[in-house]
Amino acid sequence: MTVLTAPPAPWLAGQIQKSAASFCSRSRPGPGDRVFRHQGRAAGHARPRLSAPRASLAEAVVDYSVRPEPAQEFWTSLEPCKMVENKRVFLEEHRIRGNEAGPSQHVTIAAVANILQEAAGNHAVAMWGRSSQGFATDPELVERGLIFVMTRMQIQMHRYPRWGDLVQVETWFQAAGKLGAQREWLLRDKLTGEVLGAATSTWVMINMRTRRPCRMPELVRWKSACFAREPPRLALPSDVTRAKLPAVADPAPLRGNRQVARRADMDMNGHVNNVAYLAWTLEAVPEEVWAGSHLYQVEIDFKAECHAGDVVCSLAQEVPPQEALTHNGAGREPACYVHSLLRGETELVRARTTWRVSDATRGGVAAHGSAAAASNGSAAAASNGSAPHANGNGAH
Amino acid sequence: MTVLTAPPAPWLAGQIQKSAASFCSRSRPGPGDRVFRHQGRAAGHARPRLSAPRASLAEAVVDYSVRPEPAQEFWTSLEPCKMVENKRVFLEEHRIRGNEAGPSQHVTIAAVANILQEAAGNHAVAMWGRSSQGFATDPELVERGLIFVMTRMQIQMHRYPRWGDLVQVETWFQAAGKLGAQREWLLRDKLTGEVLGAATSTWVMINMRTRRPCRMPELVRWKSACFAREPPRLALPSDVTRAKLPAVADPAPLRGNRQVARRADMDMNGHVNNVAYLAWTLEAVPEEVWAGSHLYQVEIDFKAECHAGDVVCSLAQEVPPQEALTHNGAGREPACYVHSLLRGETELVRARTTWRVSDATRGGVAAHGSAAAASNGSAAAASNGSAPHANGNGAH
Repeated sequence: MTVLTAPPAPWLAGQIQKSAASFCSRSRPGPGDRVFRHQGRAAGHARPRLSAPRASLAEAVVDYSVRPEPAQEFWTSLEPCKMVENKRVFLEEHRIRGNEAGPSQHVTIAAVANILQEAAGNHAVAMWGRSSQGFATDPELVERGLIFVMTRMQIQMHRYPRWGDLVQVETWFQAAGKLGAQREWLLRDKLTGEVLGAATSTWVMINMRTRRPCRMPELVRWKSACFAREPPRLALPSDVTRAKLPAVADPAPLRGNRQVARRADMDMNGHVNNVAYLAWTLEAVPEEVWAGSHLYQVEIDFKAECHAGDVVCSLAQEVPPQEALTHNGAGREPACYVHSLLRGETELVRARTTWRVSDATRGGVAAHGSAAAASNGSAAAASNGSAPHANGNGAH
Repeated sequence: MTVLTAPPAPWLAGQIQKSAASFCSRSRPGPGDRVFRHQGRAAGHARPRLSAPRASLAEAVVDYSVRPEPAQEFWTSLEPCKMVENKRVFLEEHRIRGNEAGPSQHVTIAAVANILQEAAGNHAVAMWGRSSQGFATDPELVERGLIFVMTRMQIQMHRYPRWGDLVQVETWFQAAGKLGAQREWLLRDKLTGEVLGAATSTWVMINMRTRRPCRMPELVRWKSACFAREPPRLALPSDVTRAKLPAVADPAPLRGNRQVARRADMDMNGHVNNVAYLAWTLEAVPEEVWAGSHLYQVEIDFKAECHAGDVVCSLAQEVPPQEALTHNGAGREPACYVHSLLRGETELVRARTTWRVSDATRGGVAAHGSAAAASNGSAAAASNGSAPHANGNGAH
């Protein structure tokens, strides 16, 4: 095969026409335009002859004898996972992936939950090691047939990162009563240290034989205490955690599309991954809220499990927001919903979501994107064509 | 709050009882047991008093005055993304996440596709830079309203990595005719260099205004050629690529559960992510093949897009395998299916999957796991209880 041509970067349908129009109609980029941030250009190399943006690239004089430089030849490395604070806190870094971002260009709450759970899992591996089957594991629990199960998770997000952003997860755990424990997380922007979000979760020890909660064996209590955060620390203010979630009215005022659990949703345990429940919960929120608001907080109680092929009904109801939350980052007049996921008559999950609502959304404008995208005139996801797959990663 | 106790690592339901029984009944672990591989133990520290496995940990003498060491205090770092081979090839590393593994404990094909697409996207960012909206972007294409769309992807997997494994993606592109380009990938085990899988994809340039394929502008052709692999190289043997995929018979012999596109499936472009189509395709494969075989190859033609809320029908039909593939890693008597995804009358995707079938599966035994898991007696995913969420990451 002869190489005559080679491909440029791919493009995303809806972005193009608006962006092209913007570039053509103004000599300088406006606030809604695509402003190029070339990062980490190769030091010591000639600058590329083509630099963007300019009024019209057709006018640019191109010197074909000079090979263009890559826009970003050097990448920031991720630090390895590590235990800090006398081995009682675990740090892990991630670079946000393109497939973790949604139509608003920001990471989805499901992707955030995946990142938090990954750090929790690696922390467990760090403490207890990994079995030949790949699980984080401690021999004492294997012998006794005991497991820890997550019964509740609560995530608050102040700002959602975007594709390519470096984030650092800080996670630790501490006791919560005689049967359980709490795991806490902080999510930071790696480069600035800004706290992007925080989360907490409740875990209970279960005896697999009796399927009932049980106390931790003394040896396990001791080993765990050796790695628990000391002194304990809460990631979220105590006045907004551990709230009892109200039930959705019957019949439910809001009902999302019927959902089906996929084989691809099943995790190493052979059950549907927790994150799928989170995704289903959001299906019942009105379109203009989902697309035009910032999901500030989600509280989710896990009650029963499901498997591939199960049909799940996502119900919701708008409720008044918690008073404490409006002083805690949810903003003026947040929207709040309680949620229930049902498989037949079985309630799999009960949840509550709290949304920072932009003025545009409150005014009934269904903007397709986050609150930020809606308010800055972004054309994100404005495309609605029938062309084949413009790849969301901008990849080719 | 007083810390009296703190949690051990969580456990995965089905694993526990079998493993506990194994440990109790034998003094040394058998081939199906959980053998502990403690990695990277802290150098210079006292070894922990508790080491596993042993016949019964209840017999162990515990010295509570000595704090146990973490099982894995030090982690291998990931190298930053980089361009190599005169900036014509891109390398990116990933640590496999727990949520990327399925019931077989191995990474799912959907997770593999996500990793490949992420490397492709970052390669595009490296070459062209990133816009303020987060996309990989080149100003010439913005101005002309042109995009590259992926019309085909083909992945071959020799071995699927597991949670915690380090993988390296090598990716590059080269021309394919006057309208299109190919992107190629190799996926390697970072520590051993073993090639785990390989993939290729076809991209076509589309004019967003006319919605028809078009030639690349000269400037874009030149810039692309500067970063294309030279000389060109194919990741997959040419005798197994670019095959025309046959249609599924009507009525289709195999029909998966009806699937619903989720809001969480939508990518930065506002369309359903390519990887969701891949997941839906596998829904129509018989349970014993999906759960008990190694998915060796997938070929997927993208024909039309869909959006959140769309209902998708997954059809399939068993067909004879390609002769060339049986000499190319698919093994003796592979199983082969053609697939079609329909939204109403519209064909969204046509695909073909080829599976290495284990003797157990061929004999009609529905093993729940990969071919490897089925043949080594693993109890992975044998759990089927109604307990709350044992987390698939082994996290708490």
